[in-house]
Amino acid sequence: MGKVRVGILGATGPVGQRFVQMLANHPWFEIAVLAGSERSAGKAYGEVVHWILDTPIPPEVKDMVVAAGTPDALQGRCEMVFSALPSGAARELEPQFAAAGFPVFSNASALRMEPDVPLVIPEVNPEHLALIRVQQERRGWKGFVVTNPNCSTIHLVCALKPLHDAFGLEQVFVTTLQAVSGAGYPGVASLDIVDNLIPYIPGEEEKIEREPLKLLGTLVHQHVEPARFAISAAVHRVPVVDGHTEAVVVKLRTRASLEEVAHTLRTFQGVPQRLGLPTAPQPAIILREEPDRPQPRLDRNAGNGMATTVGRLRPDPVLDYKFVLLGHNTVRGAAGASLLNAELALTLGYLDEFVDTASLEAFQPHPATTL
Amino acid sequence: MGKVRVGILGATGPVGQRFVQMLANHPWFEIAVLAGSERSAGKAYGEVVHWILDTPIPPEVKDMVVAAGTPDALQGRCEMVFSALPSGAARELEPQFAAAGFPVFSNASALRMEPDVPLVIPEVNPEHLALIRVQQERRGWKGFVVTNPNCSTIHLVCALKPLHDAFGLEQVFVTTLQAVSGAGYPGVASLDIVDNLIPYIPGEEEKIEREPLKLLGTLVHQHVEPARFAISAAVHRVPVVDGHTEAVVVKLRTRASLEEVAHTLRTFQGVPQRLGLPTAPQPAIILREEPDRPQPRLDRNAGNGMATTVGRLRPDPVLDYKFVLLGHNTVRGAAGASLLNAELALTLGYLDEFVDTASLEAFQPHPATTL
Amino acid sequence: MGKVRVGILGATGPVGQRFVQMLANHPWFEIAVLAGSERSAGKAYGEVVHWILDTPIPPEVKDMVVAAGTPDALQGRCEMVFSALPSGAARELEPQFAAAGFPVFSNASALRMEPDVPLVIPEVNPEHLALIRVQQERRGWKGFVVTNPNCSTIHLVCALKPLHDAFGLEQVFVTTLQAVSGAGYPGVASLDIVDNLIPYIPGEEEKIEREPLKLLGTLVHQHVEPARFAISAAVHRVPVVDGHTEAVVVKLRTRASLEEVAHTLRTFQGVPQRLGLPTAPQPAIILREEPDRPQPRLDRNAGNGMATTVGRLRPDPVLDYKFVLLGHNTVRGAAGASLLNAELALTLGYLDEFVDTASLEAFQPHPATTL
Amino acid sequence: MGKVRVGILGATGPVGQRFVQMLANHPWFEIAVLAGSERSAGKAYGEVVHWILDTPIPPEVKDMVVAAGTPDALQGRCEMVFSALPSGAARELEPQFAAAGFPVFSNASALRMEPDVPLVIPEVNPEHLALIRVQQERRGWKGFVVTNPNCSTIHLVCALKPLHDAFGLEQVFVTTLQAVSGAGYPGVASLDIVDNLIPYIPGEEEKIEREPLKLLGTLVHQHVEPARFAISAAVHRVPVVDGHTEAVVVKLRTRASLEEVAHTLRTFQGVPQRLGLPTAPQPAIILREEPDRPQPRLDRNAGNGMATTVGRLRPDPVLDYKFVLLGHNTVRGAAGASLLNAELALTLGYLDEFVDTASLEAFQPHPATTL
Repeated sequence: MGKVRVGILGATGPVGQRFVQMLANHPWFEIAVLAGSERSAGKAYGEVVHWILDTPIPPEVKDMVVAAGTPDALQGRCEMVFSALPSGAARELEPQFAAAGFPVFSNASALRMEPDVPLVIPEVNPEHLALIRVQQERRGWKGFVVTNPNCSTIHLVCALKPLHDAFGLEQVFVTTLQAVSGAGYPGVASLDIVDNLIPYIPGEEEKIEREPLKLLGTLVHQHVEPARFAISAAVHRVPVVDGHTEAVVVKLRTRASLEEVAHTLRTFQGVPQRLGLPTAPQPAIILREEPDRPQPRLDRNAGNGMATTVGRLRPDPVLDYKFVLLGHNTVRGAAGASLLNAELALTLGYLDEFVDTASLEAFQPHPATTL
Repeated sequence: MGKVRVGILGATGPVGQRFVQMLANHPWFEIAVLAGSERSAGKAYGEVVHWILDTPIPPEVKDMVVAAGTPDALQGRCEMVFSALPSGAARELEPQFAAAGFPVFSNASALRMEPDVPLVIPEVNPEHLALIRVQQERRGWKGFVVTNPNCSTIHLVCALKPLHDAFGLEQVFVTTLQAVSGAGYPGVASLDIVDNLIPYIPGEEEKIEREPLKLLGTLVHQHVEPARFAISAAVHRVPVVDGHTEAVVVKLRTRASLEEVAHTLRTFQGVPQRLGLPTAPQPAIILREEPDRPQPRLDRNAGNGMATTVGRLRPDPVLDYKFVLLGHNTVRGAAGASLLNAELALTLGYLDEFVDTASLEAFQPHPATTL
Repeated sequence: MGKVRVGILGATGPVGQRFVQMLANHPWFEIAVLAGSERSAGKAYGEVVHWILDTPIPPEVKDMVVAAGTPDALQGRCEMVFSALPSGAARELEPQFAAAGFPVFSNASALRMEPDVPLVIPEVNPEHLALIRVQQERRGWKGFVVTNPNCSTIHLVCALKPLHDAFGLEQVFVTTLQAVSGAGYPGVASLDIVDNLIPYIPGEEEKIEREPLKLLGTLVHQHVEPARFAISAAVHRVPVVDGHTEAVVVKLRTRASLEEVAHTLRTFQGVPQRLGLPTAPQPAIILREEPDRPQPRLDRNAGNGMATTVGRLRPDPVLDYKFVLLGHNTVRGAAGASLLNAELALTLGYLDEFVDTASLEAFQPHPATTL
Repeated sequence: MGKVRVGILGATGPVGQRFVQMLANHPWFEIAVLAGSERSAGKAYGEVVHWILDTPIPPEVKDMVVAAGTPDALQGRCEMVFSALPSGAARELEPQFAAAGFPVFSNASALRMEPDVPLVIPEVNPEHLALIRVQQERRGWKGFVVTNPNCSTIHLVCALKPLHDAFGLEQVFVTTLQAVSGAGYPGVASLDIVDNLIPYIPGEEEKIEREPLKLLGTLVHQHVEPARFAISAAVHRVPVVDGHTEAVVVKLRTRASLEEVAHTLRTFQGVPQRLGLPTAPQPAIILREEPDRPQPRLDRNAGNGMATTVGRLRPDPVLDYKFVLLGHNTVRGAAGASLLNAELALTLGYLDEFVDTASLEAFQPHPATTL
């Protein structure tokens, strides 16, 4: 076996397409199965997918026959799955896959806040992967589910992590300007977004106000003690294809100079950077000095879409500091997040029982203790 | 004299065009002079203006010869002027016009924060017009200058006014998503805004953090004692033609229920509404209940572009309440603001020495004491 | 009876909304019934409609209960109906309404090309209304159906009509750049149109290549002899909210100078203009001289959205002349077209058996012979 | 010498930036000098450029000091230059560079139609490079100027070339929908393009109607006999960042079936494809079968932005066939066109007197006779 064989659940949707695109030339993983809805199953992927990315469909998957999205249909054909399922389907199917022995790396929101399901950003809380064992034991699953947060949460927490570690967070205000690709396809109607914006995305503010506290929480006695600070979120959909922009104001627990804050952001190194994971951006956070950056069209592809760009760091007249951040919402904000989680899990040995890592080309294991 | 003859300074620019459009059929004012730069002076308005509004140039001004923008050139031709001058020109020319005996109603930022220059929104601080007397005395001017705030400030403060009166403001966070028409013409390059947004507008955050304190301040002993609360602003330019959106979070001084806050906004009546000024929207604040409103394309023209629409009023997990507001940036946010100031000043008698109000058709004076 | 009571079929869709907006203050017609799908019937219009226009829902229809879209449900409640039904529903329901005694003024494409159904633009072929008698006789209907063409066809043929009359058309090439509102709601997905365009609209080129020949055809012996010239159409969807742009090249049968062509367009007067119909634009065709007009945002509302604006008239190096034209696609291109047809029919006496015209306020009949 | 050292004239503008981007990792060429206006000269490139591309400035040029744009300033520092100069400057400076011994590969329009200046698309008329000798002899230049056509012309003629060769062209109608990046920076004002389009680009129709005849013309007795067919062009600017779309109708001299036309386009192989030039797309023309392709966002990057995508090939009711084509306007339509010309010239030996080709790595010369 040269590479780990993976399946993609929900492979025809926008996030599924990003999984296909990002896995096409991956050094460790190869696409073995594309699973879709009943409507798609049995047909060639290239026929049923309404491809919306600006790179062509990878030729090797074009003629792949779409499989049904059930554990039975994938059994023996892949060692693990990535899930781009919508929330309702994820809640039902992901536990079935885990029970049937598949490691599931999911972008869906369904199980994120379950106490025994790791909600992980490798740069932020890699140690939370240890919940895998708790989950397996508690639920009697042979496989497991690992989740990543909402697209807006990911980039926000990437930027907050070094500040929280260094100075402690007390209050966070975040206002988002989110790209239309975040709404899936067909998603937002063009009449609602040409010469317009919508100050509302169902369920989004709740996710942004809740998920960071689990991500920045502490693993104690087999559960995550949430971080203690307050978040206020206000979200907007804007006429941008890809790239979420977020205006942030923070109150810190300890006093810090502007230069200290800048230095903390600029020098941040996460575990994926230290491990040199294939999809990890280097650096994870890009701090720009220009007065008018980041901008979606210019900065969303930074670090191959995996970096978070921060700009306009400045003192705030009410709290401590404000800044604006930007990141790609379907790369780092979705498929790339699950992929990096899988790279981390593989590297730390969590896939050892599912994959013969010795036979993997181009792969160097790192024991979890090196974190 | 059937109507007050007015001049427009900076008549060919985008705000100048709005003045022309809004004054075209005004019951009290008529356009007597259009003043422009040296390049335009002496030529027909229809020839030199690059008209960007979606209604045609009013036929009666198309052939009007553009005058030079000096007091001499306008002397005897109009009783007062509206100024759509850029800031630099305003700082130089507006005092000359006031000294030469013209009442100047200015949209420019140049003199807004001068202690003896009224910065007025008729719904918010009509009593600040009393600074006119202070200004005339201190500077020895026969005329005077009255200013209105920045486009983003106006709608923000319209919404804050009833809350400040009822509950007191302690902290305000505002994140704006501003339309491209706010940058003038040619303004923002299309390459910077198609599939993009810019998280920066020079000088804008400073104005939004400063002007509201003067507007909500108290007139004591011939000067304005600024209001005491803290404002944090973060501004963005988005691909919308007209209509600024603002996401707001407030901390109040006294406890208020959601229904009390909603009721306060919904029932707000300002002086222009009570006086029935021609350009006053009725109501000044529209509170919408739908989860996804206001939106620029749908709500910017509410109240003929003079109303402020508030929506998504909800409790905030960090402070007290958050909401989103929207208003037209070149109507209420610019030309309409100056025009309403002029209507207020005329009604309250501040133009009595310049205009024979008795001969005005369709005009009912109200003594200032009725405020 | 002060006004003709009308029903609107398909009242909740985008074209239905335009009917509501345009009929709200109409001098001759008043909205008596709003009919919708089963899902909407029985509920208040304001609750079920997803209103997408930038003027508010007229207050008088907000609480109107939506009726089922059947002849029975409308019987006795209105004298005639406007149809904004989708094509499939129109093909089934419009004949039922006509059979039940309703005059139907339809924007749907279903029956347009039926030999005994008038396809009419009042400026172009008002005399084709005479097919009403043929239709009633042939089908045994008490009522009738009158249709108007496709949104792109209407503005194209408005501009071609005077040229065809004066010089004869031989070849017409038209390339359209069509607004997203033409696709209904939700219509085009935002991911397909932000920083993008689509060179395809199903069925649209066929309509543009076929309908003009019937419209410019001659009524002989109870049927329409189609005009004889060739049309080539290529259509595109572009990121514009309202207003279709069309680039046209024409080959004429007789030689004409540029000035003759311009004069012919500039001086065109149609029957609606001569009759002074309430919704008729004056003039029907606006010929602009600027090098860069018409533009959708600036010119779509010309003549209250009912005029066709032509610009860039110039010699063509291959055929004779080329020009660009623009018109509002949901006003003149849809609801306004049906409405003007109804105004024409009423004026010419085609509604005499359905309406007591003597009791109508503000209405002056013109016998058909005056055409 | 590992690579040919090149200079870029007009390096800070949008096309200059594309040259920088495309030359950054080129196997044969390396950027030795960046030349700019007086305002930029002497400063670091990274400081003076307003970088508008969505990939970062290549690190190796960021600190390069911008040179003055004169032959003296570049003498000895590079073997040849690419010109991204505006037309006026090109007309003056390019002859000076050629006279001073530099081969100039220019994207400017200034000299394109000069009888002794090659106007070349390598897939279309590589043999026209022979005019270099005529030009040098006639003007006494040691260097020379080679030009490429206008961005819209390039993709149009790429698609027309195989049809002209196989069937002969008689009439061509083309309507363009052009991206805003084609207008440079700041270029089109956002107020002119958000929810809008402009049916006019100065000088563009003339170029499209004229340049193809030279490109498809025949080299006889040291000059180009223009091709004999008629072209009609109508151009529009639309809210798309990159990628020009063109709707084309053609009349052929000999009868051809739809399948013959499709086959001719699908199997086209140009000289750059046969030579395997580094920047040549493979294939040069992509023929798509979907009804709704090509689209700018999805297809502009085909062949790394160097391919022309054709779609919707279908019979035309007036002439013979119609189709829509799309290509990247600043890659293949500008910098990439000059670059491919240079690769062709180097390969065919036209740079032998300027460059020690024997010492070039990764380069295989092909004698001109192999064409």
